[in-house]
Amino acid sequence: MTQPKFENHYTDMRNLNWSAEEKAIARKAFDRALQQELQEVIEKTKKLSAKITGPDDLWKLESYLKHRREEIDRDYDYRYSVLPIVFGRLIREGRLNEQDLQGLGEDKLFYIRQITRL
Amino acid sequence: MTQPKFENHYTDMRNLNWSAEEKAIARKAFDRALQQELQEVIEKTKKLSAKITGPDDLWKLESYLKHRREEIDRDYDYRYSVLPIVFGRLIREGRLNEQDLQGLGEDKLFYIRQITRL
Repeated sequence: MTQPKFENHYTDMRNLNWSAEEKAIARKAFDRALQQELQEVIEKTKKLSAKITGPDDLWKLESYLKHRREEIDRDYDYRYSVLPIVFGRLIREGRLNEQDLQGLGEDKLFYIRQITRL
Repeated sequence: MTQPKFENHYTDMRNLNWSAEEKAIARKAFDRALQQELQEVIEKTKKLSAKITGPDDLWKLESYLKHRREEIDRDYDYRYSVLPIVFGRLIREGRLNEQDLQGLGEDKLFYIRQITRL
């Protein structure tokens, strides 16, 4: 198989075909990373909240929650056209590893690894 | 003294003269109500936070904080031109009573009572 050129990765990624099995693997890995990240926000929120002593701490907590919600909304984008980028980032951040994506085709892993190495 | 007509209350209120003593009384009452309201939000935040079990509770807390911050920003307006409205509302809500404003001139109390009775 000829490796696709990375320059055209966005167009090529959109044309990848995901089998039902690959979709199940992807969904499971995606949900696992998302749940873990949400759990971290919940734990940090409880810690920050317990330490509130005045209005500054209160509005800092609001700002933290808004910021994290926006980041999570932006980062966890389950469109197949961008999923290799999402997984590449999650691996780079240590939230997933390649084992979690075992069963995805080499065509998807190629793009994921490119992003991981960025 | 002729009682001012309530219809013109906004224009008339803006023309009230606040003595240094009245300003001190107003500031003390205003700050007391504000601190008390902020303390309520802090206590509720700690309670809500302790009960978070998942993302729905998390983003409900963010929404609660945003809503309360906006309400407090809107309601605690320390311009002398609107202060009688602010105090009238705080008395109506049980956050202050007229004793807290003892020492304000009858010209201010007139407007405050009009709002209290709304």
